[in-house]
Amino acid sequence: MPKIDVQAIEPRNATGYPAPFDAPMAKRWFRRLAPVGGLSDFTASHVKLEPGGWSSQRHWHALEDEMLVMVSGEAVMIDDGGRQIMRPGDIAIWPKGVENGHHLVNEGDVPCVFVVMGGGVAGDHGGYSDIDMLFTPDGYTHKDGTPYAAKRMW
Amino acid sequence: MPKIDVQAIEPRNATGYPAPFDAPMAKRWFRRLAPVGGLSDFTASHVKLEPGGWSSQRHWHALEDEMLVMVSGEAVMIDDGGRQIMRPGDIAIWPKGVENGHHLVNEGDVPCVFVVMGGGVAGDHGGYSDIDMLFTPDGYTHKDGTPYAAKRMW
Repeated sequence: MPKIDVQAIEPRNATGYPAPFDAPMAKRWFRRLAPVGGLSDFTASHVKLEPGGWSSQRHWHALEDEMLVMVSGEAVMIDDGGRQIMRPGDIAIWPKGVENGHHLVNEGDVPCVFVVMGGGVAGDHGGYSDIDMLFTPDGYTHKDGTPYAAKRMW
Repeated sequence: MPKIDVQAIEPRNATGYPAPFDAPMAKRWFRRLAPVGGLSDFTASHVKLEPGGWSSQRHWHALEDEMLVMVSGEAVMIDDGGRQIMRPGDIAIWPKGVENGHHLVNEGDVPCVFVVMGGGVAGDHGGYSDIDMLFTPDGYTHKDGTPYAAKRMW
């Protein structure tokens, strides 16, 4: 059926980030929508951040556009330009190749929910603004190219 | 800025549909998000349906996935499977090539808003379930291939 039964999809709070960068992700619960919906042109996830949760480390993509639609609750979107509050109906777009690291943080005391889409481009890679890390299709490296042992999670 | 100033985008209620299929579209106000956001991997529009408004004629895409996130208000999503109510946070996905014509109708007495994404695939074409019409990259035809004079609008 075209309408997605979001609650029937098992939420996960896993991340492939190496320690200690994985710690802020424990309060992010995501549900991948593309497999259940039959979507292949782009990716989509339903994400709930519990109070204190982060959407990701502050990051940017070299080859893949990203777009977010806020659905409920409130979060702070942090990027190189500063802080902006995201409320239901608010939309953000991060075009590929713009090295403006961004993430959402739930600084409130109730959960917030958003839907995030990505270009799903093979070979995508990018970087993180606040930590010594890059990502490639194969995994994570330091900014000097030395690999981390952790594997990216799909 | 990544956060989109939706209200600063001029809404349009135009459609390329030939008469009389254009009439139900007058209460659909859309804002294209990709140009202002710098998005090129997929398309995205912010859509407001006034009471009585239709999202489109009931249609399907041959080559392009489509996804919708309900943001505010309520609409009825109608497809070959029947009717489903779409409320804030509800998500629908229509995979390419599935000939399940669908649209949203605002049967209430207040506006509703959704965000809709598409694959943005060149050469996309498809059909309409309730009327004698197909669409191609070049325009609209009857189901026997005879063209309508009206041009598709981008």
